Formats: sequence, structure tokens, C-alpha cells
Amino acid sequence: MDELLYGVAYYDEYMPYDRLEKDVAMMKKAGINLVRIAESTWSTLEPQDGVFDFYHIDRVLDAMEEAGIHVIVGTPTYAIPAWMEKKHPDVMAVTKQGRGIYGARQIMDITNRHYLFYSERVIRKLMEHVKDRACVIGYQIDNETKYYGTAGERVQEAFTAYLKDKFRGDVEAMNREFGMNYWSNALHSWEDFPDVRGTINGSLGCEFEKFQRGLVTEFLSWQAALVGEYKREDQFVTQNFDFEWRNHSFGVQPEVNHFHVSKCLDVAGCDIYHPTQSKLTGKEIAFGGDLTRSLKQDNYYVLETEAQGFTQWVPYDGQLRLQAFSHLAGGADCVEYWHWHSIHNSFETYWRGLLSHDFAENKTYGEAVVIGNEMKRLGSHLLHLKKENKAAIMVSNEALSGLKWFPIQGSLEQKKSYNDVVRWIYDALYEMNVECDFVSPEAENLEDYKMLILPALYCVPEETLVRIRRFTENGGCLLGTFKTAYANENVKVYHDSQPHILSECFGILYNQFTYPEDTYLEGRLCSREEKEGAEVFMECIQTKGAETVLRYVHDNWGQYAAVTENTFGKGKAVYLGCMFSPKLLKKLLEELLKDCQIHPNPGSCGFPVIVRGGRNQMGKQVYYFLNYSGEKQEAACPEGTWTELFSGETKRAGETLLLQKWNLLILEEQ
Amino acid sequence: MDELLYGVAYYDEYMPYDRLEKDVAMMKKAGINLVRIAESTWSTLEPQDGVFDFYHIDRVLDAMEEAGIHVIVGTPTYAIPAWMEKKHPDVMAVTKQGRGIYGARQIMDITNRHYLFYSERVIRKLMEHVKDRACVIGYQIDNETKYYGTAGERVQEAFTAYLKDKFRGDVEAMNREFGMNYWSNALHSWEDFPDVRGTINGSLGCEFEKFQRGLVTEFLSWQAALVGEYKREDQFVTQNFDFEWRNHSFGVQPEVNHFHVSKCLDVAGCDIYHPTQSKLTGKEIAFGGDLTRSLKQDNYYVLETEAQGFTQWVPYDGQLRLQAFSHLAGGADCVEYWHWHSIHNSFETYWRGLLSHDFAENKTYGEAVVIGNEMKRLGSHLLHLKKENKAAIMVSNEALSGLKWFPIQGSLEQKKSYNDVVRWIYDALYEMNVECDFVSPEAENLEDYKMLILPALYCVPEETLVRIRRFTENGGCLLGTFKTAYANENVKVYHDSQPHILSECFGILYNQFTYPEDTYLEGRLCSREEKEGAEVFMECIQTKGAETVLRYVHDNWGQYAAVTENTFGKGKAVYLGCMFSPKLLKKLLEELLKDCQIHPNPGSCGFPVIVRGGRNQMGKQVYYFLNYSGEKQEAACPEGTWTELFSGETKRAGETLLLQKWNLLILEEQ
Amino acid sequence: MDELLYGVAYYDEYMPYDRLEKDVAMMKKAGINLVRIAESTWSTLEPQDGVFDFYHIDRVLDAMEEAGIHVIVGTPTYAIPAWMEKKHPDVMAVTKQGRGIYGARQIMDITNRHYLFYSERVIRKLMEHVKDRACVIGYQIDNETKYYGTAGERVQEAFTAYLKDKFRGDVEAMNREFGMNYWSNALHSWEDFPDVRGTINGSLGCEFEKFQRGLVTEFLSWQAALVGEYKREDQFVTQNFDFEWRNHSFGVQPEVNHFHVSKCLDVAGCDIYHPTQSKLTGKEIAFGGDLTRSLKQDNYYVLETEAQGFTQWVPYDGQLRLQAFSHLAGGADCVEYWHWHSIHNSFETYWRGLLSHDFAENKTYGEAVVIGNEMKRLGSHLLHLKKENKAAIMVSNEALSGLKWFPIQGSLEQKKSYNDVVRWIYDALYEMNVECDFVSPEAENLEDYKMLILPALYCVPEETLVRIRRFTENGGCLLGTFKTAYANENVKVYHDSQPHILSECFGILYNQFTYPEDTYLEGRLCSREEKEGAEVFMECIQTKGAETVLRYVHDNWGQYAAVTENTFGKGKAVYLGCMFSPKLLKKLLEELLKDCQIHPNPGSCGFPVIVRGGRNQMGKQVYYFLNYSGEKQEAACPEGTWTELFSGETKRAGETLLLQKWNLLILEEQ
Repeated sequence: MDELLYGVAYYDEYMPYDRLEKDVAMMKKAGINLVRIAESTWSTLEPQDGVFDFYHIDRVLDAMEEAGIHVIVGTPTYAIPAWMEKKHPDVMAVTKQGRGIYGARQIMDITNRHYLFYSERVIRKLMEHVKDRACVIGYQIDNETKYYGTAGERVQEAFTAYLKDKFRGDVEAMNREFGMNYWSNALHSWEDFPDVRGTINGSLGCEFEKFQRGLVTEFLSWQAALVGEYKREDQFVTQNFDFEWRNHSFGVQPEVNHFHVSKCLDVAGCDIYHPTQSKLTGKEIAFGGDLTRSLKQDNYYVLETEAQGFTQWVPYDGQLRLQAFSHLAGGADCVEYWHWHSIHNSFETYWRGLLSHDFAENKTYGEAVVIGNEMKRLGSHLLHLKKENKAAIMVSNEALSGLKWFPIQGSLEQKKSYNDVVRWIYDALYEMNVECDFVSPEAENLEDYKMLILPALYCVPEETLVRIRRFTENGGCLLGTFKTAYANENVKVYHDSQPHILSECFGILYNQFTYPEDTYLEGRLCSREEKEGAEVFMECIQTKGAETVLRYVHDNWGQYAAVTENTFGKGKAVYLGCMFSPKLLKKLLEELLKDCQIHPNPGSCGFPVIVRGGRNQMGKQVYYFLNYSGEKQEAACPEGTWTELFSGETKRAGETLLLQKWNLLILEEQ
Repeated sequence: MDELLYGVAYYDEYMPYDRLEKDVAMMKKAGINLVRIAESTWSTLEPQDGVFDFYHIDRVLDAMEEAGIHVIVGTPTYAIPAWMEKKHPDVMAVTKQGRGIYGARQIMDITNRHYLFYSERVIRKLMEHVKDRACVIGYQIDNETKYYGTAGERVQEAFTAYLKDKFRGDVEAMNREFGMNYWSNALHSWEDFPDVRGTINGSLGCEFEKFQRGLVTEFLSWQAALVGEYKREDQFVTQNFDFEWRNHSFGVQPEVNHFHVSKCLDVAGCDIYHPTQSKLTGKEIAFGGDLTRSLKQDNYYVLETEAQGFTQWVPYDGQLRLQAFSHLAGGADCVEYWHWHSIHNSFETYWRGLLSHDFAENKTYGEAVVIGNEMKRLGSHLLHLKKENKAAIMVSNEALSGLKWFPIQGSLEQKKSYNDVVRWIYDALYEMNVECDFVSPEAENLEDYKMLILPALYCVPEETLVRIRRFTENGGCLLGTFKTAYANENVKVYHDSQPHILSECFGILYNQFTYPEDTYLEGRLCSREEKEGAEVFMECIQTKGAETVLRYVHDNWGQYAAVTENTFGKGKAVYLGCMFSPKLLKKLLEELLKDCQIHPNPGSCGFPVIVRGGRNQMGKQVYYFLNYSGEKQEAACPEGTWTELFSGETKRAGETLLLQKWNLLILEEQ
Repeated sequence: MDELLYGVAYYDEYMPYDRLEKDVAMMKKAGINLVRIAESTWSTLEPQDGVFDFYHIDRVLDAMEEAGIHVIVGTPTYAIPAWMEKKHPDVMAVTKQGRGIYGARQIMDITNRHYLFYSERVIRKLMEHVKDRACVIGYQIDNETKYYGTAGERVQEAFTAYLKDKFRGDVEAMNREFGMNYWSNALHSWEDFPDVRGTINGSLGCEFEKFQRGLVTEFLSWQAALVGEYKREDQFVTQNFDFEWRNHSFGVQPEVNHFHVSKCLDVAGCDIYHPTQSKLTGKEIAFGGDLTRSLKQDNYYVLETEAQGFTQWVPYDGQLRLQAFSHLAGGADCVEYWHWHSIHNSFETYWRGLLSHDFAENKTYGEAVVIGNEMKRLGSHLLHLKKENKAAIMVSNEALSGLKWFPIQGSLEQKKSYNDVVRWIYDALYEMNVECDFVSPEAENLEDYKMLILPALYCVPEETLVRIRRFTENGGCLLGTFKTAYANENVKVYHDSQPHILSECFGILYNQFTYPEDTYLEGRLCSREEKEGAEVFMECIQTKGAETVLRYVHDNWGQYAAVTENTFGKGKAVYLGCMFSPKLLKKLLEELLKDCQIHPNPGSCGFPVIVRGGRNQMGKQVYYFLNYSGEKQEAACPEGTWTELFSGETKRAGETLLLQKWNLLILEEQ
């Protein structure tokens, strides 16, 4: 699309009375140029088996076409109608908890043949019906697809077949690789395969999760191909990816390999829900955006984000606008709210949209009017923002699964999961105004980066480790944390010196680890008086060539290194043997980034003034100065001469940029 | 009954050896003139299918008759014998958790035809056997009846039929009213009705709970009719209602519509279990009593309350007596302990009765001796206490269900339920010595009151709102809290200005609400320096004619009102947009009560000296002065000349009344 | 065995590559002279139904035989292979949670005929194969056997038969004894017996647990007999008992009657896992050891204990050695680690062995080398340590079950379980350096002791109480706590004065109890100013001849005694009516121990310097001086002349013994 999209999810189906005309008028006023429809509305689209009703779709398409508002049509498959479950009870996913009861969305077995039959039919009917409508610019296949714990008999049969294939029919090879002899779990015939839901074998468990993620890839690729049979050349296919959920979007999604699924999409899309009010930091917006942008290394769509959302998310004055432009600052070409109005019944009555239950012009809608019109005015300067980041974080669904089965455990009360470590690192970079990409363990382009970060890359194939070692040897800067390179892709712990293959690269080894009770850190970056504590988990690192940057302060563990630094080939490798405070982490990163000549975005000393940038479609450098605080802030205008886009004013190097609370400026180079 | 009843539940069935004669002697000594028997003893009464054994009943009736002790006979239906479940496994309720396992009480499907068959037979046999016994003064049907989550196939069929009826066969009407289109839940044929246990639709979920409460009404009405076929004219039918349980009796019962059930009863009865020792406040006694008295607008029976109870309930010296007279102060004509002795086996071994396991005269029994003899002596002055309260609280099972599905949510960690708000208001009035009644949303007698209070009346039909508006217009004083009049009786949020219909009456509207992070209140009743915080949840109120009593102190929310006051017709309407401290609430209530000329009971500045009163059967004003503290307290003798009933002393206006710790005085006008 | 055993569990089956030769060499270096094999490896031993494969067993036996390392062979029955569950799904235990899913260990019904058939066959095959191997010194039957909640149909049929037998066919006798009339649970025909998993009757529930413990006794006795058919005279049979688990070994095992099972064993064995690092106190080592030693009143084997274990258990320098000798100080003749290496897959990947995942010589292994060689050098002085303790604690599975059903409850938030009380007493004695034995309620040898302690002996048959009374009358010193002698062996509360039978012996009675809110203690041992609080639960004790040692300080409870002392016959009986601080408990014990002339081990003022002792096989007194702290400590050399075994130095009375941090000395009399 050659324009910024500012949109809402719109459900004519949920309206308590006919609102369409009035709603379109309010959208126009707010500069809204996009609606997403049809997603999750199967029961109105196909009220009975084989009976289709395009009433709501047609009237919305007509209205939008007339109003000049674009439409993304969602396939309705993520919530099944009751008649389907009545006719084919086997469409329900059987999970560890057994068979579910009909009611919610996302309760079906995405491999079930009846579900797939009905899905195919409704998608074909829908595509035939809408594909030629001028207002339809693209399609969203399903929504926030995951595997919903599906583990019924058929799924397990397919899993056994998959394993047979993986191990070329040799069950003893599986026993060895997965360590099945333990607790008498070894199989000596594929026919003996037990219900995998009961397994206590982490290798088998993780493999099953990987297999389940593969089901999501298959399912979405199949939908994309189906839609592809119909869609016009100028229409795109996207998906609405979501992230690990901790009452808001938090980290890498456990149930989907976003990198794999993205191959079938034209545009990567996602939803980002985040704390706001005094807790608005922009972190989730940036994290989710950077991850989604990295999938296709291109601009992306934010297909859902909150308008009012939950009670505790109602934005302060200015925040809705700050949020919208924060998405653009990450490279989004689309910001879409879930959803237009607040629903009057059912489950998400209090996940409120742009409009409240009374449909009146409330404060939040009022701010959307400002945003929409600014986007219209400035769109050509903001569209297709391109970044050339020099730092990359390697993220891995497999490491996440591995550390779910084998958590980073300190004392019994203290556990850290994979995403805790990912966000520990990412958030520090974010607060320092260092932008980064994400890469998968399969990435072949490591050399595009100066710095590669491995947060808790627990289980990883040797070929990736070899690639990482080469990256370092060739001059890259490598930063690895504890629990990296500990196990192979089958979650079998490597039985030589840890970290496997990278031991030489980091110039260290260790074979004991424990938890840091009253253990502090000292060394180049802090003295023992500062009481910087080792946190949660600590490895007892012995240097083999590396320099000790920080060592433990403890009666028993004082003999070991906590953080080390090593020269390897033309490169450099830093290893973090334990977790510690973000403050200390930023000190360490600052040093390291200087070393490898990665410069933070200019003009700010860091959070709460966040600077994000890139080049727009005219090839001009653009910087967003975002103030995530309730206080006025200042920033320094970077080198050069700039136009501040909202005001049109010229800003020159050295000038002070005044940022109002929860507000932003955008500089474009002249 | 024309005498005060002082009783115990008596289970000859549970005795480790023959105690009857000794027990009767000890009862007589303690002035006990009532026992309740037979409740929950089905397996001894009907040891095998169709075999009846009246051994225990007969011998207790004989003994009581001889001793002149009254008997309430309970139908035994709330605990089924094992043989019934063996023969008809379908008597067990199927709930969200599936079918239960036999063992506990209250595990059956109260609509099951086998259960009903056996219930009818045992009730008829029992009634035939006992109805002519002189000592039998009345019957308790079942016990603490609820619906026990019953949701099996038959129940669901009945529910579908009920809905068909409610919507006159029009499934689309249901879709619209319940918002079933959401997440593809719409039904286009009644045959597609899915298992309601899985529903995520709050409207459907609440309707099912209402239907289930209806099952309780049906079941108890059926039992009452059955008993009615046999009972003598001078015998009554009662039920032992219980309340929302929070380790003690707390609030409105979610599973029973007490107002509806009461229609089939002659006397309303309840059980009240409450904290004691340093936590004895009298609140639960007053709350449960006021609610039960309101059901039939008449005196009521406390059919169960604790003697020793749990470990933490063993009363301090004086407390058992204070408690007993507190019940009478609320209008109870009967105080009965659960139970006489402490059971030597099974589940409630440590829910101890008046006697301990050793059957000796312990401290608690010693105090009962005092109480029983005082009741006998003063009974005619205390019986049939009548109240003419001028304030009423409207309570609603529907609002309770609605706010269970859609809790009053602030931050993620903070939730308030319906009863939290009801008790917030009730407890403030109680502490101020203002007595009140309860009314249901169906009440036609609102004009009997000067003041009507609506705590979180979340979902409510328009006709009730119209009645409330009229009450105000005609000169009533209305106090409404946040979350009132937000949804209709089908838990469909009203789509115009909130609060629906009452918006004009309160002179306000709002369409946003959030949670009060560091948000304080200021205005007529407190300054910002007092740091009175808004708590849990807050509505952003815009006045439309109302005066702002309190506004929010907050950088972003300072523009909104928190508490408002409006003149409407001849009346007045105060709206509370958020929760706050009981202290501030009492300040506000004080002002408002003065305005509408409701006067607290005289003589005390409030808790811990509680004054409750009414007119006795001689038409004389009576005041109880209750000291709920471990310290001596003073009160002032009200206007007039009084007899203190315990001592017989005359007290005159202005005299100081000395209240010993955990003790009371009773004044009767001369 | 006539040598100290220092061993490891060894699993050739779990090795990622062939390690045997290297491992044996490392073992020899460390002085390891024992491995335990085969336990839990059924799927490698019998890869398919009836196909046996002794590959791993043979090669390990060959290697060990050659190396002169002893072998304990474990029967593999505690983890079933997948083929068995595939063929006979009914081998899985049906529990309260229903049927489990295959995967973990300890999931089978130990009474299932298929499981028993396969168990018998594999044991016979295994025994035939290994019995004549010279290196095999004994057998471990199963492992950490429990009943795994087994409660399927067959088990319940057997339970009904057991009850019929217990009550000689008289179902009414059961009703009476168990109080089944309550809540209509009475049965009037054995055929009506309902699913016991649903019972709310504590007597029935406890009886079922007793029955289930009986199943464990039966199962293990059957295995012992089977093994006994084959084993050589010089080979022993043992079991690896474990304890109540609270993230480490804590107290009396709820699911096994260790006293009963031990009858079928030649040597009692156990595993002990305990906190270490700053939390290493030696308490669990001593407790588990004393309990296991008491089973056969003989030396015992520690068949599993941690080497590195969990993250938080990695020992500080010196601790592995301190731990090993602590076991010997309790009378262990064997210390064996679970396990040799750290496993590379599956469930217990991070329950690390002596070697880490890299198999290199790590710190922990380095310390084992020291230990093993010291044991070899000093073994003859340390083997077969005999104790003659004068204090005994009576422990009871039945009391544990009883107090699980009826917890020691104070306020709602506060509960104490049986083992809390047992450890409260035990730990105080331990810290005072007073060693003790454990006895069962069936013990006939009470007269062997000067002092008998009854911690919360809740339910207990009258014959035991009579025996205890006689013990006291004859001059014994009796110490009983609250909740002792309250119910009979059928968990029927005694209906006369509490404590039953012992009321006279203690010179007290009580019939009320409550919880101690702001309740303090005063009397001979402390003044009210010291604010020694009564904790959790308190009985309102009236003395009948006893002297009050401590009374409650409380406005309402001040009239009652808290701790009493009585002379009874030639003996003395002290009763504790509530819990209180360990400090006050030790004061009380100190007085009492002096009275009955029990002397703590000499040389230390108590924890952290623990002194444990006994006589070695040469008949010489030996004392271990154990320093459980990270600071140097001093102790005093006891009367006499001694050889310090590690250094060979002579120590004389009055000399100061210097104990390095986490270190020990051993004195043997000259």
C-alpha cells in the first residue's frame, strides 16, 4: 500500500442497532481509512451448515467502498459455529486437559478433517464473494492462530509418523537421542508409542511442541494458498501474530514459529497490547514491532492494538497519539485498533474500543481524530520507514520450549523463563536508544550485523553454533548469556565443556552452577561496595583465555568469573554467567557497543526520551523523539538541518528540542 | 409462636452412647425449649430403599414431648443415602467439573426424577409419622438448599426449553439480546444449542444462573406444598437460608433468590455464622438478620448459629450471651445452635456444639444456662420486635451474577465483587446505628422508605429503573454507586448515556472509567491534604446539572467528578463514582441522612456501641445497647423514661448507661 | 558387610557414549566401593514383553567385579515400560484424579495382577542372572515404593472385604465406630459401599489410607520373598525408604508404615535429600538416620543422597565431606550418591550427580576423592556404630493421617501438620545434642527408655495408652503435646476427659481449645515480659493434680494452664498444651532431661556444633564433632583420653577442639 493505514476492526454483526452510516461518518472525521471485517464471524456468515449469508459483509463493503475506506477481510476460521461442533464433536481439540467444551474461540483441532473441510468451503465462498470488491486491499488468514494444545489421537499418530521419519525408522536412535532409557521410557517398537501427553521426557516434550508449531505453519500456509487462488495481484495476505501474553504482549510466542509462518505471507502483521497510563514505556510497541519487522525484513502492519482496552489501559491525554506514532517509528505502515466500538455483551465487554458503549464522541475518539488527520497530512514522510540496524538478537522457539521444561532455576522460589532473559537484554538496548533486529537460529545473514546477542540460547544445533563462531572469528561482536549452547536441538545436554562449541570462542568453561545467595559482583564495571547482586542463577565460570570483567563476591564462589570478555579471531565475545541489574547491564552494553562502533540514536540520554529512526521513502533520515513520561523533557537536535514534521519548523544541530509530556516530535532531514 | 425459642440441633443418630435422658436434663437446665431434628439423617430414617426406621425420631419426640421442649422436624433430603446413588447413579449432579463422587451432602441433581421420587416418599412417610405429635411446632424443608452446580443433560434441555419460551421461539431474538454473534456463538436453530457449561457469553451464563436459582425455588416450593398437605394449621414451614460464604456468613446468597423462595414459607429462617473473639462486631448477625426479616417483612428464625464452632470461634466470656441477644435485636424470634454436642467422627468433628466432645458442662454451656433463663424471664418483652426502617438497600441476585461475570476491576490485581459493595454500604450504616431493610428489584413498596440505596445494581430491568426514578421524583432520597444501571436484565450493556434512565435523575453521565492509581478525592467533605483515596475503580463523571461533592485529584482525571448530588423533582440523588474509605462514606451518609431526616438510633456515637430497636408486642419502644468490645463503654439514655430489662432499673434521659465488655442492656419504654 | 560402603547409583543405560572403563577408574580413584544398578531400568532389561536383555547389567557387573567394587542390584519395578501399559492399560493406578497417563515412574497399581505377573517374571529372570555374581552383595527391592493413590475398582473391592473382616461382617458396627450416620453416610448393606474416593468421613478416609499402606507392606514383602528364593546367604535385601517430602526429606512418610515393611528386610535403607550451602544443618541427615536406624534397631544404609543435586544444593567446599561423615555419625554403614553422573535428557537433567554433564573432575568429585580415601583408611573405626539412646519419640502413620484429615488449626490461615510437631520436638533435641530413637505405637520395649515423647499422637488405640501410662507409672518420664490421645485408632474422638486414659497420668483435663491471638506464656520458665507467644493452637487446660509450669497471659484465657507437670506413680509427665518457640522448648527440655538424668553428648553448647556418638565394633566410644557453620568453632574435649581419627593426634579432657568451617573431628577413646 502506498499510504499509511489507520484503521479499526469493525463488526457490524455485534451492533445493538443499525449504526453503519453514523459510524462511517465518524470514521471519516477521524481520518480512518481502513477497517478489518469478517474475522471470527463464522456463525453469521454461515448460520447453518452450507447456508451462507453475506448480509453484514455486503453492507459494510458497500458502505466502505462508497466512503473510500479500505477493507481487510479476515477469514472467519478462528471461532467455530455451534452447529459444527454439534455435527462433528471431533472438531474440538483434545488437549492435556481432555476434550474441551464448546464456547470459546480457538478450541478446535486445526488438523481435524471436518474442521478443514468447513474452513476450506467457507474461505472459498467468502473469497468468491469479496475478491473483486475494489475496497478490499487484502486478507487476514485466521487470527492469532496457535495450536491450542491439540494432542488427540490423530495428532499423536501424525507425531509418531513424524518421529519415525525424523529418525529414519530407527526407534533406538530416538531412545538414544532423547535419553528414553531414563525411568524405563525406552521404546523398542513404534507401536508401543504411549500417549505423549503424559511424557516426562523433556526432549520428547519439546519435540512435540516443535511438531505442534509445525501444525500451525502448515495450517496457515494452507489457508494462504487457498486465499492465493482467488486474490487479486494488488491484494495482500497477512496474519495477526501475537506474542507471549503476560496480561499484555510480552515476548516470543511459544506456540508459533513466526519466521516459518511468515514465508506464506505478503505482509507480516501482529497485535500489540501494552500497559499504558503511568506504565506506558513504548517497550512492548518497540519489541513487537522489531520482531514483526524482522520476519520479512520489511515494514509490517499492527493489525490490532488497544484504543481504551481494559479499565487500567484507558489512555491519558496524549497517549493514544504517542502510541500510534510509536508504531510508525518501529516501521509499521498500519495502525489498527481493536476495535471500533465497545461490545455490549459476551466475553470482551470491557475490552473497550475507540467508542464507548454509548457510541458518543469520547476523549479517546477525540484524540484519534487528531491522529488520523496528522497521518493523512504527513503520511508520505512516514510511510515505509527503513532501518539498517547493526545489532541483532537471536531468538528461538526451541530455546523457549527447552527452558519451559528446564527453567532457569535459582532457589526453589525463583525461576526465570526464556522471555525474561530476552526482554532483559532487549529492554536495556531500548532504553539506550539502540535499535536492533531479531534473527532466527536458521539465519544465514549474521554477517549483516556488527553485534549478535544470544539471550539464553539454551538448545541449539551445532550448525548454528558453528555459524555463530564463524561470525565472531570474522570480526563480529558476540554477546552470550548463561544457559546458552547447553543442549542440542533435541534438548540433549552437550556432554563436553560448556558452552558447547562456543567455549573456545568465549574463552571460558564451566561445569558447576548454583544460585546466588548474597552474592555480589565486582570488577571493571563496579566495585563490591556498590552491592550489585548476581540474580537468580549463576554459572561458576573458569576462564581459559578470557579476561574476567566481573567476578563473584562470595565466600565460596569468589574463585569464579561472572562476566568475561575474549578476543576470538578478529572478533570479540562477551559472556554473562548470571543475571544482574539493568543498570549494570547497560554499563556493560555501553562499553561493548562503543567497541564495535554501534551508536545509539542521537539526541537523548536514554529513556524516557526514546529516539527511533530510519529512512523514509524519499530516502531521507527521519528521527522520532518520543517522550514516555508525564513530565516535559528535552532532547538535543542531532547533527544537520531538520524539519520538524508536525510544526514544519526547521531545527538545527545543537538546538534543544522541547518534548511535552506524553508527546513527540518528528525530525526529517532537509 | 408466642414465645421466644432458644434451641439446638439435636442428632440422636450421632451419639456415641445413649445420652437422651441426660441431654434433656441439661437442656432443661439451660432453658432450651426447642430442638431441630431429622435434617440430613436420611440414611438412618430410610436405611434401605423403602424400609423406614423411626427409632431415633420417635425416641426424641417422646423425650421432648415429655420435657415440654418444642421440635422442628427437618426433611432429610439434603444428604442422600448411599443406596440411592448405587441404584440410580444419575441422582448425582453433573456440574462444570463433571459428575461428582458420592460422599458429601448437597451433591445431587435437585431436578432428578429419582431423587424427587425418593424425596417425596420419605417426606410423606415422615410427615405421616410426625404431624400429629404435639411437640412438633413446624418443619424445615431441606437445608441450605442451593443448586449445587447442576448442569447435566436434562437440566440443559430444560434450560433450552426455558429460553425458547423466554424468546417466544425466536432464536434470533436470543442472539440479539445476548449478543451471541460475538466469537461466532450465534445459534440459528434451537437444536444447535451447545453445552452451556462452556459458554463464554456473560448474558447466557447469567441467564443460566438465574434459571438454576429458579430450580431451587421450584424444588423448595414443591417440598413446602408436600409438607403443606400434612401439616397442622398451628405448624409452620420454614427454610434455613444461608448467605455468601467467606469462611463465615458474608453477603447475598448467589445461588438462591431468597425473595422468591420465601413466598412458600410461613416463617423465614437462616443460619448465621460469624467471627467471634476479638473479631466479634455484630455485623454479620445484623446483616443476615435484616435480610431475612425483609423477606417476609416479619420476624424470622435463626435456625443455626455457632456455639463453640471452629477453633477460632470459641466465644470469650459474655460473647455467647451478647450474640444471642443481638439476634433478638434484629427481630429474630428464635436462636438455635448448631448443634447440641460436638460430633465424634466425620467431617465436622471440629465444628463444635454447645457441649464439647466430653459432654461435660463447659464454659460455653454455662453461659447458655444464663441466656436461656433470661430469655424465659424476659421473653414477652422481646418477642415479635417490629421495626419501621426508613432506609432500604436494593439487592439483586442478577447484579451479583452480572458482576461475577464482569467483576468491578481496577488494576489486574484488584477486583471487587457485588457483595463487597453491598457490605461497604451496609457496614457503614450499621456502624452509624442506622437500621435498614432490604428490597428486591421487584419491590413495589419503595414509597415506604425515605431513602433508597443501590449498591452496584449492575444489571436491572428498565421497569425497576423507572420505579426508582419515580421514587426520587416523588421526594425520595436516592443513593447510587458506580456500576449501577449499566446493563439490562439480560446483562446487555445499555447503549445510551450511563447510568441508564437514571442519568437525568443523578444529573450526570459518563462514558469512560478507569482505575485510581494515586488518585485522591477533594471537595465539600474532605480536602486534598487528607489523602482520601479513590479505591479500586473509578468512573469519569461529567455533571449535567448535578453538583460535584467530591472530585478526583489527579493530573489526568482531575477534570471529572467522583461524587455528585442532584435535585430531581421533589427528591435528591447522590451518586458515588468510586469506592473510598468507610470513614469518608460515613461522613457522606451522615449529611445525606440528615437531609432526608433519618435519625440514627439514639444514645451512642457509633460502633462499638450499637443500638438497635423496635416496638415489642405490647407496642412499647425497646432499645438494645450492645457493646461489641473488650472495653467498658458508656452510652446515653435516650429521651423518655425506661426500664432496663435485665436489672429492672429505671433509666431516664441523660443518664449514663454503663456497658460492661461484651455485654448489653435493654431499655423498654415505661 | 564388614566394611563401610561408599557408593553411587550407576546407570550404564543413560550414558551418551561408552564411559564404563573411564568411570570405573574415576570411582577407584575416589575410593568408591559400591554401585547400585538396574533400579528403574525395566525398559532396557525387558525391551519387549518376554524378551530380556542383560547387556548393560552384564557389562557393569563384569567391570565392577574386575575392579573390586560391590554391587547392589535393584529390581526394576518402580517404572514400567511402555509396552506393558499398551498391552494392559489397567496396570495404571486409578486415583482420586482418575486414571493417569503413561510417562512417569510410580504410576501403576501395585495390586494389579498384570503388573504383578510381569514384576514376578522380571525379578525371577534378573535374580537367576545375577545371584551368583561375586560382586553382588545385596538387593534393593523396588524403590521409594508408595501406593501412588491407587484406588481403582479392585482396590476398593479389596478394601470392602478388609472392612467386612475388620468388623466381622457387621456393617452397623462400622457405622457406629466410624460415625457414618453423619450426613446420611450410614450403610446398611455391604453392597451399598460407595466409591471411597468421595468420602468426607475422616474415619473411613484414614482407614483407607491405612489399608493402602498395608498394600505397600504386602507388595514389598512379596518382592522380598521372591528375591529370597534366589539370594545367597551372604546377600542382603534392603529397600530405599523415603520421607515426607517438602522439597527435601522432612518427616514421617505418610504412605508407608516403615516399621511394618522393615520386617521383610535384612537391612533398612533410605534416601535423604537435604538443603545445603548456608542451609546445611545436619537435621535431615540425623532425623532420617535415627528413624531408619530405629526400624531394625541396627545400622542402616543411606542408599541415595545428593552429590550436587539441584542448583541450590551444590555444596560449598567441605560440605560434601561433612555430610558423608554426618551419615556415619547416625549409624549408617553406607553412603551412596544419587548418582554418579548428571543425566543429559529427560526429567532429572538438573538433579546432578557427582560428575557434571561434562564428566570432568569437578570440585564435588574432588571432595569425594578425599572422603572415599578417608573412609577406607578409618573404616574399621567407624563401621557398625552402636547407640544406646535413653529418649524415644513415638511416631505414628495413623496420627499423621488423622491430622491430615483434621489439621491442627488455629486461625484459618494457620495450620500445622503432624510432622511439624514431630520436627519441632526432634529439632530441639538435635540442637541440644541429645540423641534419640523412634518407636512405633506397637512398640513393646518402652521400658528401654528413660523418656518417652508423644508429639501430637492424635489417634491411638487404648492398649498403647495403657502401655504409656504403665511406662510412666513405673518411673518413666513422659512428655506429651497437645492433640495427643484425642481419638481412637478409628479416628473416633474419645468422649470422656481429654487426653484419654492419660488424663490422670498428666494430672489435667480440658474440653475447650482455641487459637492464641496475642496470647503469651508465663511461669517458671519465662516471665510475661519475655513475650513468649503461644503459637497456632492452644488447649484450655485445667489441672487436676498437675503443677502449672506455664500459664496463658490473656484477658480471657488467663485462667488456663499451658504447660503442666505431674508426678504419676514413680514417673513424671509433662504436657504441652500449645506450641511455642524452639528456644522456650529447649529450656523446658533442659530441665526435664536433667530430671530424668539424660545427658547431652559432651563438649558442645549446642548447634551449630553437633556432637553425635556411639560405640564402634571394637567397643570404643566414638564422638563426631560436626561444625554446621561457615565460621570456625570450638568445642571442649570430653572426659578421658582420645585419638582424633583424621589426624591421629591425642586429645585430653579440657583441651579445646578447633573445628574449621563446615568441618569435623572424630574422637575415639584410647
